[in-house]
Order: sequence, then C-alpha cells, then structure tokens
Amino acid sequence: MTSAGERAAIKAVADLGLNAEICSYCRMRTSDIDLALECDVDSVHLVVPSSNLHIETKLKKDIFDKKDREDVLMMAGEVAEYAKSHGLIVEFSAEDASRADFKFLKDLYASGVSHGADRLCYCDTVGMLTPEKTFNIFSELAFSAGAPVSVHCHNDFGLAVANTVAAFRAGAAEGHLTVNGIGERSGNAALEEVIVQLEHLYGADTGIKTENLYQVSRLVSRLTNIPVAPNKALVGGNSFTHEAGIHVHDLVKNTASYEPIVPDFVGRTRRVVLGKHAGASSIELALTELKLDANSAQKEEIFKRVKEMGDKGLRVTDADLQTIAESVLEIHCEPTVKLKSFSAVSGRPSIPMASVILEVNGKEEVCVDTGDGPVDAAIRAIQRAVASVGDIVLEEYHVDAITGGTDALVEVTVKMSKDGKAITARGARTDIIEASVEAVINGMNRLV
Amino acid sequence: MTSAGERAAIKAVADLGLNAEICSYCRMRTSDIDLALECDVDSVHLVVPSSNLHIETKLKKDIFDKKDREDVLMMAGEVAEYAKSHGLIVEFSAEDASRADFKFLKDLYASGVSHGADRLCYCDTVGMLTPEKTFNIFSELAFSAGAPVSVHCHNDFGLAVANTVAAFRAGAAEGHLTVNGIGERSGNAALEEVIVQLEHLYGADTGIKTENLYQVSRLVSRLTNIPVAPNKALVGGNSFTHEAGIHVHDLVKNTASYEPIVPDFVGRTRRVVLGKHAGASSIELALTELKLDANSAQKEEIFKRVKEMGDKGLRVTDADLQTIAESVLEIHCEPTVKLKSFSAVSGRPSIPMASVILEVNGKEEVCVDTGDGPVDAAIRAIQRAVASVGDIVLEEYHVDAITGGTDALVEVTVKMSKDGKAITARGARTDIIEASVEAVINGMNRLV
Repeated sequence: MTSAGERAAIKAVADLGLNAEICSYCRMRTSDIDLALECDVDSVHLVVPSSNLHIETKLKKDIFDKKDREDVLMMAGEVAEYAKSHGLIVEFSAEDASRADFKFLKDLYASGVSHGADRLCYCDTVGMLTPEKTFNIFSELAFSAGAPVSVHCHNDFGLAVANTVAAFRAGAAEGHLTVNGIGERSGNAALEEVIVQLEHLYGADTGIKTENLYQVSRLVSRLTNIPVAPNKALVGGNSFTHEAGIHVHDLVKNTASYEPIVPDFVGRTRRVVLGKHAGASSIELALTELKLDANSAQKEEIFKRVKEMGDKGLRVTDADLQTIAESVLEIHCEPTVKLKSFSAVSGRPSIPMASVILEVNGKEEVCVDTGDGPVDAAIRAIQRAVASVGDIVLEEYHVDAITGGTDALVEVTVKMSKDGKAITARGARTDIIEASVEAVINGMNRLV
Repeated sequence: MTSAGERAAIKAVADLGLNAEICSYCRMRTSDIDLALECDVDSVHLVVPSSNLHIETKLKKDIFDKKDREDVLMMAGEVAEYAKSHGLIVEFSAEDASRADFKFLKDLYASGVSHGADRLCYCDTVGMLTPEKTFNIFSELAFSAGAPVSVHCHNDFGLAVANTVAAFRAGAAEGHLTVNGIGERSGNAALEEVIVQLEHLYGADTGIKTENLYQVSRLVSRLTNIPVAPNKALVGGNSFTHEAGIHVHDLVKNTASYEPIVPDFVGRTRRVVLGKHAGASSIELALTELKLDANSAQKEEIFKRVKEMGDKGLRVTDADLQTIAESVLEIHCEPTVKLKSFSAVSGRPSIPMASVILEVNGKEEVCVDTGDGPVDAAIRAIQRAVASVGDIVLEEYHVDAITGGTDALVEVTVKMSKDGKAITARGARTDIIEASVEAVINGMNRLV
C-alpha cells in the first residue's frame, strides 16, 4: 500500500500532463487498484508473486498443489480484470520470476493475458540472473507469451545493466531503468548505462537525447541525496577525467586513444587533472592556460613538485599549480588578499557571527557579518572585505563527507568566478571554519 | 615511467615478503624494465600498443605497412627478452586489443611467446567490449595463444565486471580486478562482484575468503578516499538494507525472499531501517527492541508518524523512533541531559574553544574545553559536563558531504555507546556546530 505522501506525489506527477505513461505499483488487491485510481495514473504495475518461495511466504499457498495453483492464477486474473475494467493499462508482473518454476510462470502469464493484461513483466527480484541466462529466457518468452514482455532487474551481484541489455537483445519490449541505478538495496539497472550501451555498442537508435543524461544524473543525485561514485560509468566524477601523463600526451594527439565516446555525447566535458601520474604534456597544457612561460629546466622542476604533491595523495588544484609555478619561475607575486586574523562564534541562544582582518592590496580591511552558521558568517565577512577588488562569486562550496572523529581533517573545495573566469581552490584543516576561510582566500588570490 | 614516490611504494610492498606475485607496469622500453628491477618486483606487465590507433599515436608506425609491422613485433620481443633475461616473469600485454586488427594481435602474441613471455594479456583499454564479444574472443584465444591469457577490462560503459566474468567462462587464466572497481576514469572490474558472481552464480570455488570482502572494501575506500556508492552491489551502504514494510514482513518469515545471499557471506550484517515504506512489522520489531509495549491503536499512530517523517525524505534514527513512541505512549520522559546554552569560538591566531551550560539530572553543569576545531571543542565540553551519568563513548561521527552553498543544511549522524549498548542519533542544522551538539545530546538522552 502506498503512503498518503506517496499518493500525493504520484497524483502531482499525473496532474503535470507529461507526455508519459504514469504508472503505480500495486499488490494483488483491488484496494490497491482503487488507491491507484485516486491518483489518476494511466497504468498499474501489478505485482504477482511467482516463485514458490514468494507464494508460500505471502499467500501461504503451494504452486505444486493443483488447487492452490489454480487459486493463485484466479486471484491474479481477477485483480487484472478489475484494473482493466476501470480503464487502467495493466502491466502484469511476475515477482521473483528468476526463481519461479518456468512452467508455472508461463501459465501465470497466459492467465494474465487471458484476463486482459496489456504487458507482462519478468522481475529478477534478487538480481541473480546472468546475461546469458537472461538472453535464453527472453528468447523463449518475448515473442510467444501473448503480450510484450518487460524486464525488471536488480543489481545485487552487479549485473542489472548487463542483464537488461541481454533481455533487449532477445526481444524485451520494455525495461525498468532508474537514473544512476538507484533503487532498493543495490539498486536497479542504470538508465544512462543501458541507453549508451544500446546506442554505442549495439548500434540502436533509442530516441533518447543522450546529451541530457549527465544533467539528469546530477539533478537526481541532488534531489535524492544519493551520491554517485566517482568511478561510476558515464556519469561519475571521473568518467572523463584524465590524469596519467602518458595518456594525456596521447589524448592531445587523438582523443579517441583513451575515450570510447566523446564526453559531449552525454552532455559532459573532458577534464585533465594533475596528480602523481602527471606528465610533462599535461603540465605544459596547464601552464599555457595560466599564460606562464617556462624553460625546460623550470618545467622539469614544476613537474617534480606536482608529482611530489601527487605522491602524497593530494589532488592538485588550479591554485596549487599556480603557487608551484610562480615559486619556480620566481615570480614574486605578493598575494592580493592576505589573512591577518579571523574569529567566528556560534552558540545558542545567539546568532552566528564572524570577524576578519584582511590586507587587501596592502590596505587593512576589518569586516564583520552574521550568517546561517559560523562558516557562512566568515565567508560573508571576507566577501565584504574584498568588495574593492571586484565582484567575486562563490559558485560552489563542497565539503567531502567527514567520517571518523570530530578531529578528522576536513577538506573544503570551492569553485569561484570573476568576470566569467572560474577556478577551483582548496582548504584542508581539522577546523571546518579555518578550512573554508583558507579555500576562499586561495581562490580569491588566484582570480585577482 | 613510474614516479620516485611510486617506486618507493612498490619496493615497500615487494619487501613485505607477501605470499603474492608483485608486478609493475612497464612500457616498451628497457629503461622501464631497469626501474622495475630496482623495485625488486617478481614480474612486469609489459604494455605493447596493439591497435593501429595506439601504434600510430605512440610509435608513429602503421601496422598495415609490412616493415612497420615487423618493427613493432621486434621492439616488443626485444623488451620481453630483456625482462626475461633479468629474471622477471613477463606478462606480455596488448593495449587497446579490443580495437586491434585480430590477425595482427595474434601475430603480436605469437611474437611475445617466442621471446619468452610467460603470460599474455588482452586489454579492453576503453571498455568497449560486450559480454558476448568477450566470450567469443577468449574462446578463440584462451587455449591457442601459446600461453595463459589474462583479461583487463575497463568500465567506461559499465560492463567491466560482466566482461571479465565472460572471459573467465571462455578460459581466461587471470583477471585484473580492483577492490571497489576503482581505477582510471570509470574504473576496472570490481573484485568483490567478480568473485561473488563466480562463487554464487557459476558455482566456482575461487579460494577467496569472501567473508573478508566487506572489510577490505571499507579499508580501501578509507585509504584512497574514494567513496563507494550506497547502491554499489555487495559492498554499498544499502546492499543488505531493507526498508519497505512488505519486504521486512516477508524477510522476518524467510530471509531468502529479498536476499540472494546471506550478508555474512561477504562479512556483513542485515540492516532494517524505517522510512516512508516502513510497515507495521518493522515498527513492531523496533518497538520490541526498545522494550516498549503498545496497543494496536498506538502502533497505528506510531506507524503514521514514522511514515510522515519518511515522506519528508528523512531517515528515522533510533532516537527519532524513541521520541515518537514515547510521545504516543504518553511516557513523560524528562530528558536527562538538557542544553541550556553553548558558545563555540574559532579563529586565527587562537585555539578553538567552546563552553556549554547543561542541565544534567536537574543539576546545572558549566564546562569549557578546547579542541582541534570548534565542533571538537563543543563535544569535549559536553562530555566533561555529563561525566556524572556514566561513561558515554562517541564511536562514530559522520557528516554527509555538503554541496551547494555555505548555508546548506548540515546533517550530522553519531553512533554512541554506553556499557556495550550502541545507538544512532542525528542533528540537522545549517550550523555544523549546532547540528553536532544536537546529535550528541539526542544520543545521550537515548542512552541514559
């Protein structure tokens, strides 16, 4: 049974009038169908237990008993008919089909079709299929079950995507996909992976605007608060990030060397980062971008220092490279913004506040502000103090998840921009306020 | 070329005397072999470009030109022979093999074997194989290439694991696997997924102690600072977490209903959480654990309030459920620890400090402490103030990654224990210090 909040959400989606079939999950009960009707959905995904394990646990029946078997087929048929008679499209779904008796499964589907089901669905409820098994099963079902067959895969062993694609190859008419592969336990088949595999590895035209996939992935991650791993295919933070020196060298000559598709295909851009594998070519590329000229001995020294940072496991931000390069090139670059001191106070009952003393272009600036917390107050105070050097915007503020103790190192990364130029900078301290202040001031000096 | 830091790391691993073959990556240069020898490794993974794209880009040769073709075969053979003559085991590896001319690839392997290579390797460098292609390729190579063949898969399309398993099915002798599937771009084949698939879906005995897989996954994630997605198969935060009410109901009767393997198999435990799908049975289970008796009307009301929290997208912690239950059961439970006020200060130059005024069992306690940051100082001050009610340990302190602005909501979750009993509690505020104080005080009241 859906909760009241879920029903309000489903109804709100249905009321949007999208060019889509809006579907609600229902159990084998007419009361569930009634609730779906209240939400104005177009269709129901009617879940019927199909393995003996599920039938025994949920219905206390045994499909190997002739009478019980007929009872289950009849119950399922009746609910399907009820839904059809109320104008719903019915996807008649066999739960735990991958552990069901295949003969019973086919009888169940036949009963669904005879009671008006529009589509059938095969659920690999605990994700235990393999690509080759899936291919064989769908080869047998897809064109002989009497209605189009959908595939619903779970990712418990990490095969949801491969199994879904195998089902499509064998004739599945529909697949249940989720953005970023979210879903119960280890999730379901990732929409973006299935689509791009079909387009690129199997030459299919899915009709999906693939250039929007990355944006959708970010949106879903933000709204659900479920992070995407950096090493997730296609939409992970590192999918199109190149670090290794030798690879970047080859990429400059031919991007296909280490990229199976161009990042634009899923709406992304290529990123080259410096780290322990940084090679001469990636550093040269970065120096050109910084408009810094270096001779080969200087380049060698910059290269060495970047590698040293990388060997310590650090990511080398734009601000880090600038600092290294300026030090090697002996560019005496007095920072525009220097922190003399800061103080931030938080408490209850009281409003968080912070004061900073900065030297901006040699002139001392004292500013104070309040905020939603001491970090917010400190950054606001800094922004007031540097207003004289231009309009600097803090575009993104990110703190890596903190795990361990309250004395763990906190790493703050900021993205800042001024007059259309954007850079990243970092601060790392055990005190989150100090780390944030450090990151923002590093970024400001890089921009001005 | 490896960096100095990498060589120190490789040598340190080699010097541990592990029961393992320690291998280093080498390019087709004798100088790389010399560096590997300095590190005392047992073997080298000798990377030879094999697709015309890679050969053109890296060596400026064309394999379709007879002379160039012979040059490449000769260069590769010479380096292999050099490595062999210095006592190294040689894994002769074809880079970008999945885009290579198959005839040239076989010539390359034959040349490697004739120059003493111990093993061959097929690299799907940009991750563009499919399970069925991989199976066909390895069926052709595995037993006729003249040496055992390894498989090296990349995850650019999300198929690294499925392709690796397909290669094993067709006779691959070795697979390149990484814990959590980390690696360049979208990573390589995840060790834990490949192993558990082979064991459970294909009935193989891999000899791996699978009960240690989860611990290794956590260790690698912590040391590399690369997070694992909650929906990652087997080792993700939610792989064995059950929320939905109907599922928990069935799980209580038979855990196999929604679990393909028992969590112990990979060294984990089952977790039942309450949220918008919480059903009567999961709440009953939780109430029993809290030793609270409720009649059916009260249970209904508790159930409703938990669902309301879930509909708002909140996770329901132990402390939340206790608060709800006590409110419904009209248990007037004056909290043992009450926050009257707190103040935390951070700055530079100065040491972070915090003071708290608490009411502990009706008695006012004023305490102050310093810390590594204002959060650390505040928690230390609270711990001093409540020392009278017993030895409460803060076991875990976790802050979800903060993304957005400096005014984003910060969610702090703590795990605390007293006399062997552990609970979780939460605080959520825009001020990280206030959120931390709230979480710790909620937890303390739940424990005492």
